[in-house]
Amino acid sequence: MKTILIIGAGKSSKVLVDFLLKDAPAKNRKVILADVDAKVAEKKLAGHPSGEAASIDIHDKRKLHTLIKQVDIVVSMVPAFLHPLVAKAAVTERKHFFSASYESAEMKELAKEITAHNLFFLNECGLDPGIDHMSAMKLIDAEKAEGNQIVLFKSYCGGLLSSESEADNPWKYKFTWNPRNVVLAGQSTSRFIRNGRYKFIPYHMLFRRTDLISFKEEGDFDGYANRDSLNYRGVYGLEGIPTIIRGTLRRAGFCKSWDVLVQLGLTDDSFEMDLPHDFTMRMFTNAFLPYDPVHRLEEKIQRLLPWVDKEIIEKLAWLGLFDHTPLSLFKGSPAVILQAILEDKWNLSPSDKDMVVMQHQLETVSPSGTKKSITSSMIIKGENHEYTAMAKTVGLPLAAAVDLFLEGEIPLRGLHLPIKEEIYLPVLKLLANNGITFDEEAVILKGQ
Amino acid sequence: MKTILIIGAGKSSKVLVDFLLKDAPAKNRKVILADVDAKVAEKKLAGHPSGEAASIDIHDKRKLHTLIKQVDIVVSMVPAFLHPLVAKAAVTERKHFFSASYESAEMKELAKEITAHNLFFLNECGLDPGIDHMSAMKLIDAEKAEGNQIVLFKSYCGGLLSSESEADNPWKYKFTWNPRNVVLAGQSTSRFIRNGRYKFIPYHMLFRRTDLISFKEEGDFDGYANRDSLNYRGVYGLEGIPTIIRGTLRRAGFCKSWDVLVQLGLTDDSFEMDLPHDFTMRMFTNAFLPYDPVHRLEEKIQRLLPWVDKEIIEKLAWLGLFDHTPLSLFKGSPAVILQAILEDKWNLSPSDKDMVVMQHQLETVSPSGTKKSITSSMIIKGENHEYTAMAKTVGLPLAAAVDLFLEGEIPLRGLHLPIKEEIYLPVLKLLANNGITFDEEAVILKGQ
Repeated sequence: MKTILIIGAGKSSKVLVDFLLKDAPAKNRKVILADVDAKVAEKKLAGHPSGEAASIDIHDKRKLHTLIKQVDIVVSMVPAFLHPLVAKAAVTERKHFFSASYESAEMKELAKEITAHNLFFLNECGLDPGIDHMSAMKLIDAEKAEGNQIVLFKSYCGGLLSSESEADNPWKYKFTWNPRNVVLAGQSTSRFIRNGRYKFIPYHMLFRRTDLISFKEEGDFDGYANRDSLNYRGVYGLEGIPTIIRGTLRRAGFCKSWDVLVQLGLTDDSFEMDLPHDFTMRMFTNAFLPYDPVHRLEEKIQRLLPWVDKEIIEKLAWLGLFDHTPLSLFKGSPAVILQAILEDKWNLSPSDKDMVVMQHQLETVSPSGTKKSITSSMIIKGENHEYTAMAKTVGLPLAAAVDLFLEGEIPLRGLHLPIKEEIYLPVLKLLANNGITFDEEAVILKGQ
Repeated sequence: MKTILIIGAGKSSKVLVDFLLKDAPAKNRKVILADVDAKVAEKKLAGHPSGEAASIDIHDKRKLHTLIKQVDIVVSMVPAFLHPLVAKAAVTERKHFFSASYESAEMKELAKEITAHNLFFLNECGLDPGIDHMSAMKLIDAEKAEGNQIVLFKSYCGGLLSSESEADNPWKYKFTWNPRNVVLAGQSTSRFIRNGRYKFIPYHMLFRRTDLISFKEEGDFDGYANRDSLNYRGVYGLEGIPTIIRGTLRRAGFCKSWDVLVQLGLTDDSFEMDLPHDFTMRMFTNAFLPYDPVHRLEEKIQRLLPWVDKEIIEKLAWLGLFDHTPLSLFKGSPAVILQAILEDKWNLSPSDKDMVVMQHQLETVSPSGTKKSITSSMIIKGENHEYTAMAKTVGLPLAAAVDLFLEGEIPLRGLHLPIKEEIYLPVLKLLANNGITFDEEAVILKGQ
C-alpha cells in the first residue's frame, strides 16, 4: 500500500483528493489529508474509505516529521512561504514531494540532497505555473523536433468570471482566486523582449500597454505583461529568441478601467492609512485627487486623466467609489481598503461560475524559410463552487503527476519543473482524459 | 578647555569646522575632526592650532569609545544609518550629541537614558531638517502668541543651481547634493491635508501635481509634496490644521520634464538590469517604450505621453537620452543607470554656484476674524566649492547650536529637535549674523 499525504485542505484540495481517492482502492493507496483544522479535511474526504483526515501545525516540527514518516509521497498545498518547511522535512524523511507553487531559492538549495537520496521533487505543477509550462513545452519541443526555429513566444493566462455570469457586471470580473494578489497584480516592473528589443514596463504604465488576445469561442481579452518573462528564455530553452512575453488576461476593457485605480494610487500598498471613522467611499476616492473647490469628484478624475470616458466613470460608480456611505475598513494600505470595497462587489455569488483561459502564440521558421503561426488555446469553465475552473486546473495536474509517478510512468528523480517530456506528455494526456484540452491552430504566414 | 569631536569630514564639515575653530582659542576650545581618512580631515583643518585630525572606523567600537571618552561634545556627520552607533557610544560615555539628520526610531529609544544622564542630544539641526523647523516654529509661535489661529501651513525647500549658473542648461538644474537621493526623490507616497481633506499622491502622479511657488528676487519654482506632511501637525503643534503641506522646490518647468523620466520608468529602483555592452543611451530609453516599427523614439514618447511638447523633448535630448553612444554603465537598476547619465550633465562645473531656497506660507485668523497671509523666504547662494549654499545651510546651524550650547545659551537637556524657542531663537540670531536670513511679508486678506 502507498500512502499519499496532502498538507492543506484549501481551495484546490477537493479536486485533488477526489481524483486520488477515485482509484485508491483499486490501486491500493491511502490518502491522508492534513489541515490546521482536521474537520475541514474530514469534510473534503466525504467519508471515503481510503481517506483519512489529520490535523497539522506546520511549525510543530516533531509532529510534521511523525506524519511524514508514515507516508510515501508528500503533496504540499500550504501557502507558498511554508513550502520550504514541508520540503525540508520531506527530504529528511526521504519522501517524494509535489507542489503547485513556484520553485523557490530555498527549494533549489535542496536539489543536491534530493538527487543524492534518489527522491523526486516536482514544483510548479498546477495551472500557472503548471499547465502553462507543460502545454508550452509540448509545442516548443515539437517545433524544435521538426527543425523549426522559434522566433516568437507569447503566453497568456487568466482566472476570470465565466462568460455566462458576466451579465449585470460592467467589469465582467469577479475574484475567483486570492483577492489580494489581484489587487496587487503587476506591481513589480514587467520585463520582456519584443523583436529583439528589451522592454521594461513600470507598474503605472502596465495597464495602458496591453495586447488584444482573442479566443474563437470567448472573444477578446486584454493581455498585460507579467513580471520577468526574460527568465523563461532559459527555462523553456528559448535562448536568443527575439520575442518572448508572458502575461495575464482580463476581459477586454478591464485594464483601461483598472488603470484609473492604479493612476489614482488606490492600489498603493506601500503605506498605512488610519482614516477617521466617518470616512465615506467618496472621501476615500477624493483623497487621491487634487483639492478643487469647483469640480465634482467625477469631473476631477476626468480632468486629471483626460482619457477617462463615461463608461469608465460608470464602472467606478458601480464599485461604489463615489458613494456617500462609510468605508467598511478605515485602517490599512490603500490597496487593503480598496480590496474591502471590491470584495463587496466582486465576490462570487452562489450562481456564479468561473473560467480559466490560457493561450500560447508561437511563430516559427522552418529550415526552408517557411513561417508558421501557432495558436494554442484552453478554456475551462467551473462546474460548481468546489469544482471551479481554478480548482480543477490547479488540482488536476498535481493529482495527475502524483498518480503517474506512483504508477511508475514518470521515471525521473531529482528536483524538477514539469518542462520535460517525461513529465508533460503523460500528465497532459491524463488531463485531456479529464476535460483539460487545448485547441490548436497553425497557419502558414505568407506575407512579410 | 572644551573639546568638540566632529565625526565625518564630508561636504558640510569645512563650514562647520571653520566656524567652530574661528573663536576656539578665545573660547578655550579644541576641535577634533575624525574621518575614515585622517588626511581628508587634516586638509579641512588647514593647520589651525586648535584643530586636530583623527582617523576613525565607526565599526571599531573600542576606538570609537576611546575617542569619545576624551571629548565633551560629539557632532555626528556620518551617513544617516551610522548615527545610532555614534549616539549609543555618546550616551555610554555621557557626552552631548549633535546631528543634522532625522531623529530615527533608534535615537528615540535612547531618550530616557539621555535624560537620566542629563545629556543634550540635538538632531535635525541642518537645513531641511533644521532651518525649516526653526524658522517655521518662530513664525508659528509668534502667531500663536498673538492669539491667532493658523489655518494653513506650507513649507518648501530646494537645493538648486544658482540662477547665475543656469544659462545653457535647459533643466536649470544640477546636482548640488547626493545625486542618488535626487533621482529617487518622491518615491514614497506623499501625504498631506488641504482644506480639511486628506490627500495622497502616488509617486507617478507627484511631478504632475505641483504648486507654483514664487520668490521676489528669484522668480518661479515648482513645488511638489514631500513624503508625510501629516506627521508635522504633531511636531509643529498644528493639530487640527486644515492645510499642511511640506514640499521640495525645483525651477519652474523642471517637474513636467522630470515626470517623463518617471512615467517611462527610468527612475525605477526596484530591479536590476544587466544590459549587453553595446547598449546605447537611445536603446536604454527605447527599452521603456513600446515596440513600434514605424515611429521614431521621440515620436513614441509623444504618442505614449501626449502632453510631451518640443521643449520637453529638447530637454531629454540635452541629457543624451536619444544619443547613439554607449551607456557608461550597463548593470544596475534603471535609476542607477539614469544617475550615471545625469551625472555626466548635471555635475557642477568649477564655475557653477549653487543656491538654497526655502519658503514658508502661513494663513492665520485673529480672534476678531482678521485673516493674514505670511510669506517667509530664504535665498542663500554658494560662494565657492567648499562654501556652497548647501554646505553653509547644513553646517552653520549645527555649528551655531554647538557654540551656543557650550556658551550655556541653550539651557535644555534630553533628546530634542530644534523646535523649542530655547534653541531656535539663539540659533536663528546667530545664523542671521552669518548671512542666513528670511525675508518676511505679511498681507491682510480682504476677500474670501
